[in-house]
Amino acid sequence: MENSGEYKELLVIFKKIAYLKSTSRLLSWDQETFMPERGQEHRAGQMSCISGLVHSMLTERRVGESIEALWQEARNMDISSDCHVNLREWRRQYQQAARLPEELVRDLAYSRAVAHSAWVKARSRKDFSMFEPHLQRLVDLSRKKADLLGYKQEPYDALLDIYEPGEKTSNIEAIFRGLVPGLREILHHVQSIQPQQPLCFQAAFPVEAQKILARLMAARIGFDFTKGRVDTVVHPFSTRIGPGDVRITSRWNERDFTEGLFGVLHEAGHGLYSQNLPAGRFGTPLGDSVSLGIHESQSRLWENIVGRSIEFWEYFFPLAKSLFPGQLQGVSQQDFVRFINRVRPSFIRVEADEVTYNLHIYLRFQIEREIIMGELPVKDIPGRWNELFREIFGMEVPDDSMGCLQDVHWSGAAFGYFPTYTLGNIYSAMIFDAALKELPGLRQGFRKGNFEPLVRWLDTRIFSQGQRYRSRQLIKRITGRPPEHHSFLAYLHEKYERIFGR
Amino acid sequence: MENSGEYKELLVIFKKIAYLKSTSRLLSWDQETFMPERGQEHRAGQMSCISGLVHSMLTERRVGESIEALWQEARNMDISSDCHVNLREWRRQYQQAARLPEELVRDLAYSRAVAHSAWVKARSRKDFSMFEPHLQRLVDLSRKKADLLGYKQEPYDALLDIYEPGEKTSNIEAIFRGLVPGLREILHHVQSIQPQQPLCFQAAFPVEAQKILARLMAARIGFDFTKGRVDTVVHPFSTRIGPGDVRITSRWNERDFTEGLFGVLHEAGHGLYSQNLPAGRFGTPLGDSVSLGIHESQSRLWENIVGRSIEFWEYFFPLAKSLFPGQLQGVSQQDFVRFINRVRPSFIRVEADEVTYNLHIYLRFQIEREIIMGELPVKDIPGRWNELFREIFGMEVPDDSMGCLQDVHWSGAAFGYFPTYTLGNIYSAMIFDAALKELPGLRQGFRKGNFEPLVRWLDTRIFSQGQRYRSRQLIKRITGRPPEHHSFLAYLHEKYERIFGR
Repeated sequence: MENSGEYKELLVIFKKIAYLKSTSRLLSWDQETFMPERGQEHRAGQMSCISGLVHSMLTERRVGESIEALWQEARNMDISSDCHVNLREWRRQYQQAARLPEELVRDLAYSRAVAHSAWVKARSRKDFSMFEPHLQRLVDLSRKKADLLGYKQEPYDALLDIYEPGEKTSNIEAIFRGLVPGLREILHHVQSIQPQQPLCFQAAFPVEAQKILARLMAARIGFDFTKGRVDTVVHPFSTRIGPGDVRITSRWNERDFTEGLFGVLHEAGHGLYSQNLPAGRFGTPLGDSVSLGIHESQSRLWENIVGRSIEFWEYFFPLAKSLFPGQLQGVSQQDFVRFINRVRPSFIRVEADEVTYNLHIYLRFQIEREIIMGELPVKDIPGRWNELFREIFGMEVPDDSMGCLQDVHWSGAAFGYFPTYTLGNIYSAMIFDAALKELPGLRQGFRKGNFEPLVRWLDTRIFSQGQRYRSRQLIKRITGRPPEHHSFLAYLHEKYERIFGR
Repeated sequence: MENSGEYKELLVIFKKIAYLKSTSRLLSWDQETFMPERGQEHRAGQMSCISGLVHSMLTERRVGESIEALWQEARNMDISSDCHVNLREWRRQYQQAARLPEELVRDLAYSRAVAHSAWVKARSRKDFSMFEPHLQRLVDLSRKKADLLGYKQEPYDALLDIYEPGEKTSNIEAIFRGLVPGLREILHHVQSIQPQQPLCFQAAFPVEAQKILARLMAARIGFDFTKGRVDTVVHPFSTRIGPGDVRITSRWNERDFTEGLFGVLHEAGHGLYSQNLPAGRFGTPLGDSVSLGIHESQSRLWENIVGRSIEFWEYFFPLAKSLFPGQLQGVSQQDFVRFINRVRPSFIRVEADEVTYNLHIYLRFQIEREIIMGELPVKDIPGRWNELFREIFGMEVPDDSMGCLQDVHWSGAAFGYFPTYTLGNIYSAMIFDAALKELPGLRQGFRKGNFEPLVRWLDTRIFSQGQRYRSRQLIKRITGRPPEHHSFLAYLHEKYERIFGR
């Protein structure tokens, strides 16, 4: 099949599409970093022009016909063979695009833009009612979208599948069923063993010194600055413009150095994956990342499992001390590691520790699913949020800006996105377990700042594979088990025992 | 015609093309400013994908047919009517694209890329022979290109027309015939009246302070930082991403502050034009700039006529003194103005003063024309260059890096570009003359840092007109005369008398 003209033509078309999409990513990156403020309107025009071109190239009838014709042959091939993989993923992309009428796509894009501004305002005024009609519109359109995309069990499946191809709502539900009680148990335990009067820094941590340490950490774990850069933004993200060009971003807080340092480690985790995808496969599924969940497993692996470990700071704490001699005076390495691992329930997801984080996600998953099923009216979201929050955390949400208005996702109609955060977390623990089994000296290496064996191991198992396997398959190949919550709970349990146990 | 479906369709197609081209400009800007070094290969792929799309959209048969059909009607309309202008310029774009076979375009792009690297090496080794075969290839392709584009009198016309639509080689020749002897006369005169021992700064001028002054000057003349930005690059340029987004660049030299300061003023001149093109007309010729020559008239107007004037520094010198108190201690305003206006023949064009600059262009114009006519073999360029340099400047070129290898243009096959620099200079003097006649208090305003009347005047005559008129027509409308050299010579004469005269 590799030598058929039809297949080669698809390679050419999808490479063009990939170049356009990568150009779109540069437009977004620039918008968040350096674009002059009044460039906004023109930027929207550029982006909609390019996404229109991508859509029309992708949904050309000839493309669909070629894909279907070749798929008849490829579907019977080895499921990890290049042709099978490329056609499987091209077919998915084609179907996702072809099933959505242009009108709906435009309508969603427009409603999202309007809803986003309304959300910003509503959040600052702590007034859900200002956002409600916009959210209602996005929910209506998203439910329509789910119907058009199609699903077997429930409409939420169709939306989840956009972010985590092949994943099912019922699987997510099963994971939370085990995860949530386990997390609550760990939460109570850690609260009982961690210091009741935790460390508290009075002095500011100069942003310039934070940037140096963060860049050093990123470079040390393998982020290649000849193929990437770090910039400052309001809402951090990472993006792969293409092979050899991966950009991560962060924000900085003089009063809380964990924001910038762990933010960079998180994004550098994404960046490592992006920088090591097979460059020669650019423009084909074999050169692309698997899913948001797998991507998040990489960011959380480096941010939390590696980056908040005792061993990691054995190497970096002396460096941190030389950059913040006054601020860290009299602070022991143990106190420092305890500080960056302190656990406490909070209202805001992005400030949550490793234990409570997934409880926040669970709440959102519940609500999203009820909304998309049509069981929960949009107007009842604040009440339902606060009720669930009370149930899970035992705390009263003071207002909607600390509650259902805190996240940007719904204003972008990104229903189905949140569960990929939890998938990322549980994948990360499973992956690290597998790595530890095969490379028992890993943690010893971290003490000396040696992260290369882990990167090389991840490269073989994940980075170099592109989209050869869907996430569930990939995790099973690497760990021998399907995605499950036990590894993550065991990881947390062991970690906090080591850090806070007596 | 405005309401015909065919015309509206062309508006849509050309707007798409404009968005793609503007995206390409962001890709270039990013490449020169922030792109990681190993992003180069992917960037080349993105740019060639987009230029391929533009080419295929522009040369679609249906586009050509619509343009020809509508042109039959539009050609008889008032030449400054919207429909006439748009169709005239669309037709020119279509023809330029359609006349060049894709193979030639690709061949040129490839040969340019190869030649550029060879030129960089050849220049650093001061060895023309390393560049010669590459230049030969570019010359061959450019002559072919000229033949395909078509011309009435000589092939150089076809190339010149790319950069200065409608301009003719014979006009350029006529301008130089008057300009060159006049410049040589002024050169001798200024050399006799300027101080023989000019000011010489020992202290460095910190780059950060230079940047502040440069940005202040740019903002004061009207460059709007909510619609633009200034960045640092190796080879300065300015680019209009789109309405509301105009980016200028500069380089900085601690030992020579004139490079950065006048570099920013120059680019801010381009930027003022770009920021004030009619935003609502984006994507049509009426929203675009006239030509390289008219663009250069704006940069040179602000850099030289305004920026190196006595009045300009009456306002800015005290500010400069507060930013460089030590460096400018004991330096009088008169000495400073004399310093930034010193005249001396030099080998390098980009370092040339206002008098000798156009002599450098004259030399290049002569050689380009002889090459494109086939009169001068490529291998004889160094000899011819040095011979002409001796004739014009009376100086011996020490080596090719100071001679025919100094400019980037030929390595990019940009034959026909150089004359637009001289056109820009003579336009700038004519335009400023006209402005002075209509706004006699202009110079008085400069003394107080008031540049708004000039900007408003330029806006009415030039910025707001887009491509309504070709350059020759536009100059005639503004000044009452076709492009000529007298105004420029008179401007120089008067300026140096005022600055150096006793």
